[in-house]
Amino acid sequence: MRDLWLIGIGTGNPEHVTLEGMRLLREAAVVLIPRKGAAKDDLATLRLAILRAAGAEARVLPFDMPERDPALPYQDRVAAWHDEIARRWIAALEGAPEGPVALLVWGDPGLYDSTLRIAERLVPAPAVRVVPGVTALQALTAAHAIPFNTVNGAVTVTTGRRLRDHGWPDGAETVVVMLDGECSFQALEPSGLTIWWGGFLGMAEQVLESGPLADAGPRIVRARAEARARHGWIMDTYLLRREMG
Amino acid sequence: MRDLWLIGIGTGNPEHVTLEGMRLLREAAVVLIPRKGAAKDDLATLRLAILRAAGAEARVLPFDMPERDPALPYQDRVAAWHDEIARRWIAALEGAPEGPVALLVWGDPGLYDSTLRIAERLVPAPAVRVVPGVTALQALTAAHAIPFNTVNGAVTVTTGRRLRDHGWPDGAETVVVMLDGECSFQALEPSGLTIWWGGFLGMAEQVLESGPLADAGPRIVRARAEARARHGWIMDTYLLRREMG
Repeated sequence: MRDLWLIGIGTGNPEHVTLEGMRLLREAAVVLIPRKGAAKDDLATLRLAILRAAGAEARVLPFDMPERDPALPYQDRVAAWHDEIARRWIAALEGAPEGPVALLVWGDPGLYDSTLRIAERLVPAPAVRVVPGVTALQALTAAHAIPFNTVNGAVTVTTGRRLRDHGWPDGAETVVVMLDGECSFQALEPSGLTIWWGGFLGMAEQVLESGPLADAGPRIVRARAEARARHGWIMDTYLLRREMG
Repeated sequence: MRDLWLIGIGTGNPEHVTLEGMRLLREAAVVLIPRKGAAKDDLATLRLAILRAAGAEARVLPFDMPERDPALPYQDRVAAWHDEIARRWIAALEGAPEGPVALLVWGDPGLYDSTLRIAERLVPAPAVRVVPGVTALQALTAAHAIPFNTVNGAVTVTTGRRLRDHGWPDGAETVVVMLDGECSFQALEPSGLTIWWGGFLGMAEQVLESGPLADAGPRIVRARAEARARHGWIMDTYLLRREMG
């Protein structure tokens, strides 16, 4: 049974890593690094820079991320993709040195991330340790210097897919949207809504926009398209708040 | 106009602090430290230990946290309390050295924390910088090695007060409860609900419980009362997940 350390590294600012994360990267024997095609080389480079900054001496084992099968229904497609990633971890680890295996997980390993679900597929089951990290939720609210919640208010954290399929969550005041590749806020009736948006949060390339959704929405669509064209990829997230009467 | 740095320090594990947080603590000229009565001396001690670990040379200025006025309605009570804390910051800063003022904020400065709202009350307005930190949400899911969300699922983050007043949020699958001093999960019909609870998350004293709410609920009430009696205070949080048919 292996020790498997899932280490949250924050959203792209190497200074988002916690002291615990840095220490465990130094103590790991092996680090698995995903490769996701040319457009995401930036992310592999960032992970390697964090390892260097930590003074890590682990064996670095890259593995190629598979593609999702668009022919499958959504939940099956995700499950098959997780199965395949687990197989690639196992293949990459063949003949690797003994000792703890670490993965550097964007944001936090619990938050809209697959790594825990992939780890569950390993046989024998590894001893999983999760090291919490700064999430896109915190990177977004910090960049705008706004609170996540109103006083005693609730917040719904959801996905772009859900926002498109189900609209504004019933009775919600604040909604944070993750995993949205399609600016799904465009599906909402904008009146009474304010948006705070960020792309490349925490990174040198960070882009921010905010304002009443009716005005800011089109600006965000343009800013996102420009930033994506410039870098070849983008990660972004946003918070919407409804004025409560 | 002062620079005011609100630095998220995580949930009590000094290793939750990020590299950015450590660097800014070293660069701060002044650090404001709240004193909250004997029961919370632990927290002031922790903040001082983090400053020492960072190699901070800032002037440390303590201020006494006021009490909330129970005679006022909830929102007025919170607003009056924020006004009074802002006055105490200003009093503490009289004659302080020039340069950036830092506050070490439990968890993340955006998440169910007053510091941003207090900062808004300062005249002239300071230049606020927020440094994101590991929140109780991440500390909880990391300690239990569980995901925050299901695949493409939404999560409602709410308060104990709201759970008592409004019950289970409409249509929610996962609910995380913050600021709950009363084990408000006891107000819920437990069937189909699983709970993951943690007290003193990330600290040496960490206590965890989980399971179907019907069984785990009473265990949590006991564990919380014991831990609170032993330490004189407690901070805890929990995640509830409903089995979706």
